[in-house]
This record gives sequence, structure tokens and C-alpha cells, in this order.
Amino acid sequence: LPKHERSFYFACVTEKGERTKELILDGAVRLASELGLEGLTIGRLAEELKLSKSGLFAHFGSKEDLQVQTLDRAAERFADVVMRPALKAPAGEARLRRLFELGMEWPRKVRQPGGCIFMASVAELDDRPGPARDRLAFHQRTWLETIARVVRSGQEAGAFRRDADPAQVASEFVGISLVWNLSHRLLRDPRAAELAHAALDRLIDGVRVRS
Amino acid sequence: LPKHERSFYFACVTEKGERTKELILDGAVRLASELGLEGLTIGRLAEELKLSKSGLFAHFGSKEDLQVQTLDRAAERFADVVMRPALKAPAGEARLRRLFELGMEWPRKVRQPGGCIFMASVAELDDRPGPARDRLAFHQRTWLETIARVVRSGQEAGAFRRDADPAQVASEFVGISLVWNLSHRLLRDPRAAELAHAALDRLIDGVRVRS
Repeated sequence: LPKHERSFYFACVTEKGERTKELILDGAVRLASELGLEGLTIGRLAEELKLSKSGLFAHFGSKEDLQVQTLDRAAERFADVVMRPALKAPAGEARLRRLFELGMEWPRKVRQPGGCIFMASVAELDDRPGPARDRLAFHQRTWLETIARVVRSGQEAGAFRRDADPAQVASEFVGISLVWNLSHRLLRDPRAAELAHAALDRLIDGVRVRS
Repeated sequence: LPKHERSFYFACVTEKGERTKELILDGAVRLASELGLEGLTIGRLAEELKLSKSGLFAHFGSKEDLQVQTLDRAAERFADVVMRPALKAPAGEARLRRLFELGMEWPRKVRQPGGCIFMASVAELDDRPGPARDRLAFHQRTWLETIARVVRSGQEAGAFRRDADPAQVASEFVGISLVWNLSHRLLRDPRAAELAHAALDRLIDGVRVRS
């Protein structure tokens, strides 16, 4: 677009506004990982980011709206640093392992000092009906479906057994990452990663096509 | 003890006091399963149980003390309804399966409307150093060790392979129950229990001594 066009001006303003909002939401993801989504209020976020509360109210109508947008932003970042890069690995074992490794790393890559925001929110929201709970469930289902799709692509590539149930593999995959999170973060078990990898090996062993 | 002895009188009073405290803590377990341990305050508990705040302060010096005692009471009940009954099943597969079934049922047996208090507290406390976090970690370690001990007794009974790593089995066992909790409570996945059982079957298959 030529610089003198009004539309270019508006595009820039909109882009800048979107970027600001993204930065605010990145702060919200960081904060929610520590305080939980219930602890994430507009007031607390304003304090953290040294912004005015009224400025934040312009972006988020309510605490619930902030929670939903924070989960959406986290999912966007998760897709950026976990899902999309993993899909570049060859279908089958390599892709499934890559998905696991990137999933373990993501609370460091997209800074979440209190650990994965999704894991941190499950226990909090599972019995609180409302838009935030629905959104969290949606993103968790998407994650399970992504893993199942990676299993299916491995089956299509002839790497995984055709009779393996992708939903079963996805469920066990998530179980391994949940217990890793518990052992690593709560128990500080030095064997946490080793146990997780052994479990993943066993999971993959069960679906691998023997040559 | 004869009824006219003073020691009998004191024994009754003490027993009654202990029973009262247990009932208060059962209420605290119930409440914490819904609100989280951070949401469990002496004020909120007093309201729930229709008791005076000052009466509760006589039992618990601080919110932290209440959190710790609530976790301890939950662990006591968990031992009553999960650990001890499971140990009555024959060593090996039956005992390990019983432990899993009773673990799935326990938030209904010892009423926790928001689901297992331990699972509900992990994400909340894992980054909050203090006595409640230490207590939760202690009880989670005890749980993992109990599962590992059940695996070991199965090995001693000749049911499970000697080269199986009890800590590995315990970790995967907990992973299966964590993802079951997520699928059941958050996603309301109708396949949640089926997937958990298939995962447990696969776990047991891997350690079973083939005859």
C-alpha cells in the first residue's frame, strides 16, 4: 500500500493496537500461570504491567473476558511454539516425540513462571461453569485432537499400527505429561524427565510397526 | 474404665473434641475440593459449617494451619477408603487394579464435589513455597510410594516381572489417573473411563509375568 493512503494509516494503527494487546495478553499468560486464572484480575494485571486499570478496561470488558482472551492467547502461542514446529518433523515416531519435547519446553519458551497455564487452570475451572471453563475445554480438546492427528499421520505413513486407537494414544500421551509436570514441579523428583521418557518409549513401542 | 473415674470423663471430652474437629476438617476437605486450598479460609469455612469464626480459630491458628490439617485429614480418609482396602486384595494385578478403582471412586466416597482435593491442589501450590506445599508433596510422595510398594509385593508374589521398575509403574499409574480426571471432569468425555482402563491394562500387560 502507498504510504499516503488513509487505509495504510489505519492498518498501522490497528497493527500497533493489536501488538499492544498481544503484549498485555502475554503478561496475562505469565501472571495466570502463577496466580491461576481466578487470581488474574484486571487490577492485578494493571499493577503488574504498570498500566492504568481504565486502559485495560478498554481492552477487556470483564474479568471473564480477560480470562477467555488470555486462554486464547496462550493457545495461539502454544500453536506457534509446539504444534506448528512439531509438524515439521517426519510423520511417525519423530513427530510424536517432537510434540512431547516441545510441550515440555513450552512454559519456558513462552514464559510461564508458574508452569503451563492450561495444566494450572484445569483443577481451578473444571467445576466452574462459564465461558472460561468452556474455552479451556475447547483448547484441551484441540490439543488431544492434535496428538491424535499426529498418530493418524504416523499410521498413514506406515510407521504406526493401523489398529492403534489415536484417541487412546493421545490420552496416554497427555497422562505422561501431566505426571511429569507433577513430579517435576511439585515433587522436584530428579527422575521426572527420565520416567516421562521411559513412559513415552513404552507408548511408542506399543504402536510401532515392527520391521 | 469405670464411669465414675475422672480419667473416663476426660477421655470422653477429648474424644468428643476430636470428633468435632474431624467433622470440621471433613467440611474443609469438601470446601477445598471446590474452592481450592487458597480459597479455603477460616471465615469461609465458618460460614459453610454455620460455626463461629472465633470457635474455628480455637482449632486452627492460621489459614496455613487449616490448609495443612485439611490435607492431613484428606490423606487419613484416603488411607481409609483407598489404601487399606486395596491391600486386602491379593498381591499382584488384583491389588493394583483395586487401588486404581478405589482411587477413582474416592472423591465420591469421601465427598469432594470439586473432585480429588490433592489433584485440585497441585497446580495451586506447586509454586507457593510453604508448609501447605510441603505437606501436599509429602502426601503425593506417600501415594506414589504406596503404588510402588504394591508393585513390589506383586513382584515378590511372582505376579510381576522382577525387572520392572516400581517407580516407573507408579508414575504411569498416576499419569493415567490424572488424564482420567481431566477427561472426566473438564471434558466430560464419555470415553474417559474406557481409555483409563485400556491404559491400565497396557501398563499391567507390560509387567505381568507370562505363564
